[in-house]
Amino acid sequence: MAVLESRWSTRRREKGRRLEQLGITGSSKVVDAWCIDDVLATLIQPGDRVSIEGDNQKQADFLAGALAQADPERLHDLHLLISSVSLPVHLDIFERGVASRLDLAFAGPQSLRLAQLVEDKVVTIGAIHTYVELYARMFVDLPPTVALLCAEGADEDGNLYTGANTEDTPTIAEATAFHDGIVIVQVNKIVDTLPRVDIPGDWVDVVVVSPKPYKLEPLFTRDPGKIGRVEILKAMLAIRGVYERHEIVSLNHGIGLDTAAIELILPTYGEELNLRGRIARNWVLNPHPTLIPAIESGWVESVHCFGGEPGMERYVAARPDVFFTGRDGSLRSNRVLAQLAGQYAIDMFIGSSLQIDGDGNSSTVTAGRLAGFGGAPNMGHDPHGRRHGSAAWLDLASGEGANRRGRKLVVQLVETFKAGGTPTFVDRLDAVDVGEQAGMPLPPVMIYGDDVSHVVTEEGVAYLYKADSIEERREAIAAVAGATPIGLRHDPQVTERLRRDGVVALPEDLGVDVRRADRSLLAAKSVGDLQAWSGGLYDPPARFRNF
Amino acid sequence: MAVLESRWSTRRREKGRRLEQLGITGSSKVVDAWCIDDVLATLIQPGDRVSIEGDNQKQADFLAGALAQADPERLHDLHLLISSVSLPVHLDIFERGVASRLDLAFAGPQSLRLAQLVEDKVVTIGAIHTYVELYARMFVDLPPTVALLCAEGADEDGNLYTGANTEDTPTIAEATAFHDGIVIVQVNKIVDTLPRVDIPGDWVDVVVVSPKPYKLEPLFTRDPGKIGRVEILKAMLAIRGVYERHEIVSLNHGIGLDTAAIELILPTYGEELNLRGRIARNWVLNPHPTLIPAIESGWVESVHCFGGEPGMERYVAARPDVFFTGRDGSLRSNRVLAQLAGQYAIDMFIGSSLQIDGDGNSSTVTAGRLAGFGGAPNMGHDPHGRRHGSAAWLDLASGEGANRRGRKLVVQLVETFKAGGTPTFVDRLDAVDVGEQAGMPLPPVMIYGDDVSHVVTEEGVAYLYKADSIEERREAIAAVAGATPIGLRHDPQVTERLRRDGVVALPEDLGVDVRRADRSLLAAKSVGDLQAWSGGLYDPPARFRNF
Repeated sequence: MAVLESRWSTRRREKGRRLEQLGITGSSKVVDAWCIDDVLATLIQPGDRVSIEGDNQKQADFLAGALAQADPERLHDLHLLISSVSLPVHLDIFERGVASRLDLAFAGPQSLRLAQLVEDKVVTIGAIHTYVELYARMFVDLPPTVALLCAEGADEDGNLYTGANTEDTPTIAEATAFHDGIVIVQVNKIVDTLPRVDIPGDWVDVVVVSPKPYKLEPLFTRDPGKIGRVEILKAMLAIRGVYERHEIVSLNHGIGLDTAAIELILPTYGEELNLRGRIARNWVLNPHPTLIPAIESGWVESVHCFGGEPGMERYVAARPDVFFTGRDGSLRSNRVLAQLAGQYAIDMFIGSSLQIDGDGNSSTVTAGRLAGFGGAPNMGHDPHGRRHGSAAWLDLASGEGANRRGRKLVVQLVETFKAGGTPTFVDRLDAVDVGEQAGMPLPPVMIYGDDVSHVVTEEGVAYLYKADSIEERREAIAAVAGATPIGLRHDPQVTERLRRDGVVALPEDLGVDVRRADRSLLAAKSVGDLQAWSGGLYDPPARFRNF
Repeated sequence: MAVLESRWSTRRREKGRRLEQLGITGSSKVVDAWCIDDVLATLIQPGDRVSIEGDNQKQADFLAGALAQADPERLHDLHLLISSVSLPVHLDIFERGVASRLDLAFAGPQSLRLAQLVEDKVVTIGAIHTYVELYARMFVDLPPTVALLCAEGADEDGNLYTGANTEDTPTIAEATAFHDGIVIVQVNKIVDTLPRVDIPGDWVDVVVVSPKPYKLEPLFTRDPGKIGRVEILKAMLAIRGVYERHEIVSLNHGIGLDTAAIELILPTYGEELNLRGRIARNWVLNPHPTLIPAIESGWVESVHCFGGEPGMERYVAARPDVFFTGRDGSLRSNRVLAQLAGQYAIDMFIGSSLQIDGDGNSSTVTAGRLAGFGGAPNMGHDPHGRRHGSAAWLDLASGEGANRRGRKLVVQLVETFKAGGTPTFVDRLDAVDVGEQAGMPLPPVMIYGDDVSHVVTEEGVAYLYKADSIEERREAIAAVAGATPIGLRHDPQVTERLRRDGVVALPEDLGVDVRRADRSLLAAKSVGDLQAWSGGLYDPPARFRNF
């Protein structure tokens, strides 16, 4: 190695200085949990950019908690990068004056408190991203000075085993380790030999055994017991009007009872329609328990996962032909690669939304909540950088000559009204006002109307990609918007014309018998049924053991 | 681990069977080069999907050559996944009847022969992708059965060291290793202790020392001696009309003399304009030697790389504040992560093209050549999944209310005519006919016209994002298309109106003094000058040692 001039290696020298001060330049990378306060006080300095692993599911909660205990006289003005601000302690770090600036992707359960802290000027938000955007910036203008990560286990050399929830760890570790940042990892245990290596020890500076296992949320478990007739009707409409019609082979499902209903009627309704093997073969999604009956019935060829799901460990390990797993048998997930697959390699993204406006723009941001985006905008748009064809993608092709191109299906699957009688279709998204109040440069829209190809409601299917003007798109949305303010404005004569032109389809147009929409179509009616389908391999988390 | 039912673990059992047959289920993963034919004949079976590491730069050439020597009676009908079909031997595998199907991303030097082999039905093309699309499909519907990869070095456990050209290896290895595929790696040497670990040995099944180092192409070196007045004029127009005007902080540069000219006048012309620190700070690109003067002059804060560049090893290692490097000092590149950064985290993509049509569609595909796409379509479009703002992105914002959004700059930088008097602006892209002849479902357009925000030629700058109709976009393109067929159709009165409206700017509108466009503005005028700027750290490859 050439002798480094100090003016070109400030990051490396500073990293070396801090590690030396801590005294772990030697052999083992493992430090004791009781000295974590000293470790953080030595390795983190005021003004640092610190990435805390707050993923969609797993949380570096011990390290986040320790950072919240830091002395704000010594440690302050940190700039935090947290993809999912999920824990109260994430915001405690700001309230205690240790951090002041935040870049994030999602803030589900903390969204109300975050909005308040922004208004109180305790938190300054850099930007709200999608997951992959935030990681992308770690390689451009936001490389972390320090990363606080988590894993299942480590060996003395710092090699890491993540088990099923690899999630975001390799990406944050790479951005930090290869730009002379400091990588600190909390693990559940230290072992001599890891079941497999997910991240080389080479990329890790300090390992600490957390007093308790890291927190992991079962975000993707939906109880079939909660699925009713309306969800089943929508599922039938989606299968006939979208999956069958466009031959959807590869897909992502968002979280929710609507998509869970689709998963659960594939082995019944889908089988009747003779669709097994023709649709829904290749999936990009977390290991949804409600997918078990379809897997066991031979519908599913492959599933690549963003993360894991508590309780699905033994089932996934027993189905390696379907899931991506390691030598040790357990799932290997990877959020960046699954997002890439979900953006570029699948025919369809289908998901729900809390609000849709007359133009088809949608958002899950509602009054007073800075909820963020997660991964939906990345997968829920038509990627202009895609160049390979598939039957579904080409089925939506338009344009002539050099302008001809295919299109990804982006499907919104919603009920016209939500529980409590709140309309889903609204004149103005709450997101517009939330964005203004929070001083955001643009409204936090989740999916743009012109990217949406289909809207499915209990009323029918709107084929927005066929609309030849923004007016016709609005008319098609209104036609399936039921008795909401948007729906009430629809003109029955226009709807008839749209049906004739194939821009809108009602249940009878799709051969869907509304009377059959009941729970008898569900391949599993309870969490217990899912467990039975799995042959006892699925272990539902305690909160779902209600059968 | 649960006992695996055989019907759910066919891939794993088959992998185990083949490795056992080869007899390397034991300790060392290293096999001798002389038995490579047996290794491949045992580990690869007819009909397998085989990924051969053909990257943009580095090539698993020893393994590809061995595969081409296989007995087609025993091994046939392989489905190859090769991101860059760059070596004659890649196509020999098809001509010898070992493989029949190909999915690829790019086929630069082999594009003519590939087109011929497709016409002769020797090669059936699945699809032509961008790089990241092809990798995305490896996690969805194209997981490799076997991957043939390459690295600098390995240890006995199969841990891999890639050095500067990490490129695509970790991604292909992950897709293969975690879906019970077999990972075979050619390395330049076996060592006891690696300088760093880029890929854990856990993911690798077989390592073989290649008789000679893998082939690596210096694709990103441009000789400043070849830059003339027209390139310099275009560079001045781009800096004033695009970089300065929109405050472009983060960016990618395509390959070519045009962008090299920009890199070389930042320290002269850019400095005069007092732009240092205000523009072009964060880069996503391979380590271009022509960026050395800008780096040495303090313009560049960071560079994240898709791959490396021969000759730049010592220079990069000596500038760790700028480049992403490992503990060993050498570059860590990563094509997927750099493409992600280039798609979502930068203000601007700027590159050249061989042909542009009147609508702004462009392609590097010309008659008879199936060249493919590489990475340009991924970075050269406006990603609708982006949600964070930057000054440049917001400067191009349009729409009202929920429809308001920012826009990425996608800039085409071309000369109106190419060497030999061939017009760049054409009525019809050759790609349209090539696509038809090759039976492609859509024309192989590189960048779509509606994604292009600016066109820069020696005539001036067309601000296409300001055009309020497709007609005005055509007029603006014609206004800067010079004496080409497209340009000759422009109406001088329309051009005057477009200048008044700011849709078109000529050099005088931008304060660019055309007379100053000469080589005196270049910070380095030769490869030797680049070496001098580097303080002797840059080692130009032999073919560029012309000074």
